Amino acid sequence: MTNVSYAALEKRFARLSALDDARGMLGWDQATMMPSGGATARSEQIAAIAAVCHGILTSSELEDCLAAAEVDTESLNPWQRANLDAMRRQWRHATAIDEDLVSALSRAASACEYAWRQARRAADFALVKDQLDTLLGLVRQKADSKGAALGLSPYDALLDSYEPGGRATDIEVVFADLATFLPSFMSAVIEQRKSRPAPLAIGDMVPAARQQALGERIMAQLGFNFHHGRLDVSEHPFSGGVPTDQRITTRYDESDPLTGFMAVLHETGHSLYEAGLPAEWRGQPVGVARSMSIHESQSLLMEMQVGCSRSFLTACTPMIAESLGVGGPAWKPENLYHLATRVAPGFIRVDADEVTYPAHVMLRFDLERAMIAGNLRVADLPGAWNEGMKRLLGIVPPSDQDGCLQDIHWYDGAFGYFPTYTLGAMTAAQLMAAARKTGPAIDLGISKGDLTPLLAWLQKNIHARASSLPIPDLVTAATGEPLHAKYFKDHLSARYLD
Amino acid sequence: MTNVSYAALEKRFARLSALDDARGMLGWDQATMMPSGGATARSEQIAAIAAVCHGILTSSELEDCLAAAEVDTESLNPWQRANLDAMRRQWRHATAIDEDLVSALSRAASACEYAWRQARRAADFALVKDQLDTLLGLVRQKADSKGAALGLSPYDALLDSYEPGGRATDIEVVFADLATFLPSFMSAVIEQRKSRPAPLAIGDMVPAARQQALGERIMAQLGFNFHHGRLDVSEHPFSGGVPTDQRITTRYDESDPLTGFMAVLHETGHSLYEAGLPAEWRGQPVGVARSMSIHESQSLLMEMQVGCSRSFLTACTPMIAESLGVGGPAWKPENLYHLATRVAPGFIRVDADEVTYPAHVMLRFDLERAMIAGNLRVADLPGAWNEGMKRLLGIVPPSDQDGCLQDIHWYDGAFGYFPTYTLGAMTAAQLMAAARKTGPAIDLGISKGDLTPLLAWLQKNIHARASSLPIPDLVTAATGEPLHAKYFKDHLSARYLD
Repeated sequence: MTNVSYAALEKRFARLSALDDARGMLGWDQATMMPSGGATARSEQIAAIAAVCHGILTSSELEDCLAAAEVDTESLNPWQRANLDAMRRQWRHATAIDEDLVSALSRAASACEYAWRQARRAADFALVKDQLDTLLGLVRQKADSKGAALGLSPYDALLDSYEPGGRATDIEVVFADLATFLPSFMSAVIEQRKSRPAPLAIGDMVPAARQQALGERIMAQLGFNFHHGRLDVSEHPFSGGVPTDQRITTRYDESDPLTGFMAVLHETGHSLYEAGLPAEWRGQPVGVARSMSIHESQSLLMEMQVGCSRSFLTACTPMIAESLGVGGPAWKPENLYHLATRVAPGFIRVDADEVTYPAHVMLRFDLERAMIAGNLRVADLPGAWNEGMKRLLGIVPPSDQDGCLQDIHWYDGAFGYFPTYTLGAMTAAQLMAAARKTGPAIDLGISKGDLTPLLAWLQKNIHARASSLPIPDLVTAATGEPLHAKYFKDHLSARYLD
Repeated sequence: MTNVSYAALEKRFARLSALDDARGMLGWDQATMMPSGGATARSEQIAAIAAVCHGILTSSELEDCLAAAEVDTESLNPWQRANLDAMRRQWRHATAIDEDLVSALSRAASACEYAWRQARRAADFALVKDQLDTLLGLVRQKADSKGAALGLSPYDALLDSYEPGGRATDIEVVFADLATFLPSFMSAVIEQRKSRPAPLAIGDMVPAARQQALGERIMAQLGFNFHHGRLDVSEHPFSGGVPTDQRITTRYDESDPLTGFMAVLHETGHSLYEAGLPAEWRGQPVGVARSMSIHESQSLLMEMQVGCSRSFLTACTPMIAESLGVGGPAWKPENLYHLATRVAPGFIRVDADEVTYPAHVMLRFDLERAMIAGNLRVADLPGAWNEGMKRLLGIVPPSDQDGCLQDIHWYDGAFGYFPTYTLGAMTAAQLMAAARKTGPAIDLGISKGDLTPLLAWLQKNIHARASSLPIPDLVTAATGEPLHAKYFKDHLSARYLD
């Protein structure tokens, strides 16, 4: 006997998925193509789609359908059951807040993101303070409502929408483990490196067009299909679009072409995950990427585990030199490797090395929990930021442009997202270690610049599973054990301390 | 006493407008940025939005609201009344067809448009025949349903959605007037020109980047605000986006830079109309452009009445030469004017001169009426096309690429649209004559390349009125008389016969 209500749900969620995809495309356009005067109209468009999606998700027809489908889960296979669970989860999140709040949030997020672009350019937090204050007020309303409905703390209710099942108390445990390891490790690395010569700096100015050509070349080599995607420029690199039309972006610094190259590797890691999701479940909740930490594990695996490795960089050096039209001692493989694995406290999270990156995340994790709890006012954010940077990394940004204005997330309404970066870094290290245990083919491939063996392993163990398993089960199925900090610490020790 | 139901309708139609704007942006992306592999996902996105809009428009809540608002029109001002009428009109069109047909049409149009791009490139009608056949079947269903609901013939029901109140029998009258005038006029022009030297051909190859720079410069000079729009390249030039975020496109032929220049003038005419619509009615049915013929009158006024005039081209020549980096005898003003006003039967509508253009439209008007009536099968379209070209212009295209595959319209589901081009040309001539009657300032401005006086007249007489008047009333209000072919014929005679 078939479950008719379940079949009806699949149709409704396919439409929701198409509408959400439309919204994503408009977001991509906003960050890459839209003239600034289009901001108001765009926020209306995105808010209208958000409100429509919310209306569909919270309709009584959908609720009845869910209840009816859940009566007969025996007739469903495991993926269908996981899909039904994911639908119920979306419903719980959606019904926890009303449509007016959804519209207000969408509009406030668009307005704040727009103001942030001006504020960041002008290095003037005052230009976005009021918009962020309005947005934070609405986000806190959302967190309170969702927390009450889901039986979670307000912060966990936000975290849960990026990291299903993720809890701040669990994160605190693994972060505490890292926090005891990293400061002394960072000091030891910096101390040890004082005794050897610094890598040669890259003196060349490399035009953006050449960096774009290199980016497209490495993307193609890694398996990115330009029939199903494109690479553009935006202020903040991101991966958008849909699995069959991926829009990844980067930014180019003409004086630092290695950073643009690594950003492309990072976003390509995201996009290969999307491309590897099972086509037969496209448009269904079970068919999407598992979570933000798993997504970030794929991008960091590509950027940090592979991209910054001595063997991969050595394999890529001829292509890099040719595409960029450069040469000389600074472009020797060993020097590029030393440049790519420098360790130094810096102001900018996305430019941070693997060793100091977790401190950036821990700072944001602390600050956003305080903001959601009402213990930190928006007006006090720049000061708290600078104080935290001083404490964690020993440096204070010269202006808010390199401080609390650097990331889009909060200004776009994304609170509860930041910890997923460091969870992703730890997951990437654990996945890489597990993949290596399968034999020498993976490292052999990397040393030739050929990621086919590694991608086959990721495809089978992560991509193909989409959202069919809870996060801890997915990590255990792929690596044989739950997530812990050991592999990340081992990776750092092996790479950074001789 | 306020009309509460009317106020509720304004909110609903504002959301519909935002959703429709979103759909328009996705259409722009599809034609300019989207990788070809994104077509399937895009058609799902656009179909989902179309279905949602249709659902809102045909909901019983909206129907009740309309009925309640119409009880008390005394409390509404004339614009509100016109807005309510326009809402009812949209409702009549929407309720005439069911949601399944809307989705099927949207999906079939996306699929057909995509196939058309391949077919056109390959000059192979067979690559799109089946998709067009499917699409035409659905368009005919729509025409039949709408015709029955609106009390119109199937073709008029389609025409009415582009040209509210427009009827094929009325168009036949004005087209018949032109049809008796044009063939002998065309012969006389061509005969007279045999006796004088042909204009010098442009020998330069002008890179697309320089043409783009010229396009942006002339757009800015005409008043296009790049804070609220952009210029891109697409296979078929069009104007998309929203009034505050206008997306106009063109295409560049490196061996024929004048064509790209005129295409930019044309699309800028469209965009200045959109920019001039009253901001306080944005998002409401009464606040949109009046119709396709009025839209085309604005683009043709800019391209043909102004752009191809001796005085405007003379004023623009220094800018053209400087931006394109060209010079020499072929770039003298008088030669450019002769190039811009050449008359010769050709295969491509969008490249046609003013004298032969109506024949292209009459051919399409005949063929699309036959297809909608079921008197012309898709399989027979290429033959009928070539036969019509032979009869009307005396030439037969070498392949379907320059024949029935040249225009996007039918392949995108737009039947009933073509006559609006020639209605627009006639309206443009009539508007220009009326504007000139106000005094010498308009022609004086044109001769300096300054369209401020002309745009002020258009703004007051056309743009600011949006959809507040029926088309014949709008034309009469602006020009003092209803539309007829006289001014267009006078214009042609003055320009093309010495």
